[in-house]
Amino acid sequence: MAARLHQLGVVALREAFAAGRVSVTAATEHYLARIAEHDPALKAFTEVDAAGAREAADASARRFDAGTSRPLEGIPIALKANLDAAGLHAHGGIGAYRDRIASEDCAAVQRLRDAGAVILGMLNMHEAALGATTDNAFFGQCQNPHKPGYTPGGSSGGSGAAVAAGLCAAALGTDTLGSVRIPAAYCGVTGLKPGNGLVPDAGMMLLVQRLDCIGPLARSVADTAAVMQALAPLPEAQPVRRIATLSSLRAVEQEPAVRAGLALACDLLQGLGYPVTEHAVSIDHHRARLSGFIEAAHAADTVFGADIAAHPEGFSAAFKSYVDFGRRVGPEARAQGRAMLDAAGAEIRAVLQLADVILLPTTPQVAFPHASDAPVSQADFTALANIAGLPALSVPAGWSADGLPVGVQLIGRPNAESTLLALGAELEAALNAYRPPIDFA
Amino acid sequence: MAARLHQLGVVALREAFAAGRVSVTAATEHYLARIAEHDPALKAFTEVDAAGAREAADASARRFDAGTSRPLEGIPIALKANLDAAGLHAHGGIGAYRDRIASEDCAAVQRLRDAGAVILGMLNMHEAALGATTDNAFFGQCQNPHKPGYTPGGSSGGSGAAVAAGLCAAALGTDTLGSVRIPAAYCGVTGLKPGNGLVPDAGMMLLVQRLDCIGPLARSVADTAAVMQALAPLPEAQPVRRIATLSSLRAVEQEPAVRAGLALACDLLQGLGYPVTEHAVSIDHHRARLSGFIEAAHAADTVFGADIAAHPEGFSAAFKSYVDFGRRVGPEARAQGRAMLDAAGAEIRAVLQLADVILLPTTPQVAFPHASDAPVSQADFTALANIAGLPALSVPAGWSADGLPVGVQLIGRPNAESTLLALGAELEAALNAYRPPIDFA
Repeated sequence: MAARLHQLGVVALREAFAAGRVSVTAATEHYLARIAEHDPALKAFTEVDAAGAREAADASARRFDAGTSRPLEGIPIALKANLDAAGLHAHGGIGAYRDRIASEDCAAVQRLRDAGAVILGMLNMHEAALGATTDNAFFGQCQNPHKPGYTPGGSSGGSGAAVAAGLCAAALGTDTLGSVRIPAAYCGVTGLKPGNGLVPDAGMMLLVQRLDCIGPLARSVADTAAVMQALAPLPEAQPVRRIATLSSLRAVEQEPAVRAGLALACDLLQGLGYPVTEHAVSIDHHRARLSGFIEAAHAADTVFGADIAAHPEGFSAAFKSYVDFGRRVGPEARAQGRAMLDAAGAEIRAVLQLADVILLPTTPQVAFPHASDAPVSQADFTALANIAGLPALSVPAGWSADGLPVGVQLIGRPNAESTLLALGAELEAALNAYRPPIDFA
Repeated sequence: MAARLHQLGVVALREAFAAGRVSVTAATEHYLARIAEHDPALKAFTEVDAAGAREAADASARRFDAGTSRPLEGIPIALKANLDAAGLHAHGGIGAYRDRIASEDCAAVQRLRDAGAVILGMLNMHEAALGATTDNAFFGQCQNPHKPGYTPGGSSGGSGAAVAAGLCAAALGTDTLGSVRIPAAYCGVTGLKPGNGLVPDAGMMLLVQRLDCIGPLARSVADTAAVMQALAPLPEAQPVRRIATLSSLRAVEQEPAVRAGLALACDLLQGLGYPVTEHAVSIDHHRARLSGFIEAAHAADTVFGADIAAHPEGFSAAFKSYVDFGRRVGPEARAQGRAMLDAAGAEIRAVLQLADVILLPTTPQVAFPHASDAPVSQADFTALANIAGLPALSVPAGWSADGLPVGVQLIGRPNAESTLLALGAELEAALNAYRPPIDFA
C-alpha cells in the first residue's frame, strides 16, 4: 500500500482512481488503518463504520469496473455526529443521545452517497454544536493535530481534526455561527459555509434554522469545491471586480499572526489584480455574535429543554449553563439583540452592493490550549455570514510563530459559492506559489 | 501598481491580462523597475532592453484591445546571453565578444516573439556555457537569490537567478550537460531540457551540437509548460505506469538534503499510485560526465581556438585551462570516453524500455559559496539526459537545513516532454499540498 495515500485529496484521489493507479479498496483500507492508528489519541471520530465503508468501496469498485463511476466515486468522507446517516449514531455530541441511531440518511449524506462517496464514520463535535472547543465531556477531548493539548476549534472540531490529520479525504460539518470555518482555520484546512438553504437541512440536528448550514471541509479549495458540487447544484462563478475589508475589525483584538495572515492575503489578492478597499461599517462584532449566541442558546432550550429536565446527567454543566444564560435574557434584551442582528446583516449586504467579496480573518486568534478558557471572541468574525445568510469560505493563510494555522475568510453575495471557491483557489495558489527569498519578496 | 505583481507566473499573469485585471504595460514596467532595483546586486542581467520591452508591450496591449492576443501575450521573458535576439548583445558570456550584437532573432526567440512574449533583455551565464557557477570574469559574479555569496549554478545561472528573484516571469537557458537544470535546482525553480533537436538551435552559440538544447526555466511546472508549448509543438502526454530509480546513484556522494528530497519525491509519487522501482545499472556517473566535459572542451577549442590565440585577454584563465585540458586528452582516451558515453546512453534507454520515467536528483549538492571550489560532480546526474538525447525536467523538492533549494529530475523517453510536464505538475502539487503535522505525516 502506498505510504502516503492519505496525502491525496479528493481531486488527486479521483484522478488516481480513474487512471487505475490506486484502487478504491486500497484507499478505504488505508484510511481505516490510519484511523485505527491515530484516532485513539486524536479523538476525532465518535464512530467508525468499517463494514459500511468496505461495502461502499466494493460498490464503487464495481462501478469503476463497469465504467459508470460518479463524481465522488470511492472518496473516503466522514460526517459530523449531528447528521443522520442510516444505521450510525447521530447523537449531536450529547451524552443523553449516545444511543440514538439514525434510521435513514439526511439529504446531504444521501447526496454524497449518490455521488459515490465512501462514508468512513461519524465525527466528534462540541456538545449540541453550541461552543467551539470540541472538548466533549461524553465523547472525548478532540485534539488539534498541529499541537496536542490544543483545541481543533468547533463545533465541527472532529471534522477539522480528521481532515487535517489525513484520517479522511474530506468531511461534512455544520455551521451556525462559524462551526465549519473556525475548525477549518484552527486546523489549517479549507471550510465552506454555503448560503443558507442551499444544502437541505432535513435530517440535521437543527439549532437555529435561520442560521444553520451544512458545509464541507477539505485540504484544498479544489477538494472543498468537489464535495460542495455533490451537495448542491452551484451557479457559475462571477467575475470579482472589488474586494472589501471592514473598518469595524479594528475594534476586535487580534493576534499578530492573524493580522499578518490578513495582510498577506490582502497583498496577494492585490498582486493578482483585485482592488482591495476598506469600507466603513459600524458593526459591533462582539455584540452581534453575542446576540447570535443568545438565539442559539434559546433554540437549544426549545430543542433540548425537556430532555435536560428529564435526563440532566446526559448534558454537561457547561451546556446547561449556556441554556440557563439564554433563559436569563429577557424579551426586551432579546428583541434588541435581534434588531442588532438584522442591522449587522443589512450592513454586510450593503457592503456587498459595492464590493463583490468581503475579506476578513476567520478567527481573531489561532488555536489555544484546552486547559485555557475559550476566548469569547472565537466566532466574532464568522457569525456575520450566518446572520446575513451569505456563503463564506475559510482558507489557510500562514502560521503563527509556534506553528499554528491562521485562516482568512471570504464572504460573498447570495449564490456566490462558486465565485468564492474560484477566488479562494487563486488565493491558495498564490499562497502556495513560489515564494522568493526574503530580499526579493 | 500591484505590489506583488512579480509573484504572478506565466499562467496567472496570462489570466490576469485576459480578465483585464492587470495591463501588459503595468507588468512590463513592474519587471523593469524590479530589475533596476535588484539587479545591481544580483548580476543576473547582462543587458536590459527597456525600450524594446516597452515597444513589445505596446504591441501586446494593442492585440489585447483588438481581441487577437497570443499564447504568451505580454509575458515578460529574458534570454540567456548565448541566444541571438536582434539588436541585443549575444556574447555567450565571453569577454572577447562583449560587443557582438545579434543581427536577427534565433529560431527560439522568434517563436517567443511570435507568441507575444515581451523580451526584457539578456542574462548572465557561465563563460561560453562551459562551467556551472556563473562567476563570470567579464560580466560579474551572479548571486543566488536565496543566499548572497552563493552560486546560482550554471551555465544558465542568470536565468535561474532572474526567475527565482522575480526579475522575469520565465527565461530561456541552454543545456549541454545540465546548464538549464543545475541553475533550476540551485535556485529552486523548474527547468526543462527538451529532447535534442526539438527546439531548433539555429542562432544559438553552439558548443556540442549533439548535446546542446534550448529550454525554459520558470517558477512552476505549468509556467514552464506554457513557455515550452510556444517553443515547439509537443506530442500529447502518455500515461506513466512505472518509474525507475538507478542503483548507480549510490556511488555518487550526495548531500543529506539531496537524499531527503529524492526520498520525498519518491514517497509522494508512490502515494500518487506510481510504482517506483530501483533498476540495476552500471553507469559510472563521474566518468560519463567527465567524458561529456572533454567533448565540450574539445568543441570549445574548435569553436573558439582561433579567437583565444588572437585575443587571449578576452577569455578567462579558467576557461583557457578547460580548453587546454581538452587538448591534452589523446585520441585513444577520447575514443574510450565516447564509447563510455554511448554505453551510458544505451543503458538509460534500456531502463526506459522497462519504465516510463527515471527519477533521480538533479544535482548531488545544493548551491555552494562562490568562494569555495566548485564540486566536480555538479553535472554527474544531469549529463545523462544530454548523452542519451532525452528530455529531462528539474522540479524543486524541498530545502537544505540552511534554506537552499533541492531539485529532483525526471528523465523521459523521446518526445515525452508533455508526459514529464504532466507528471512534474502532479509531483509539484503533491509537494505543495497540505502537509499534515509531523505526528500525522
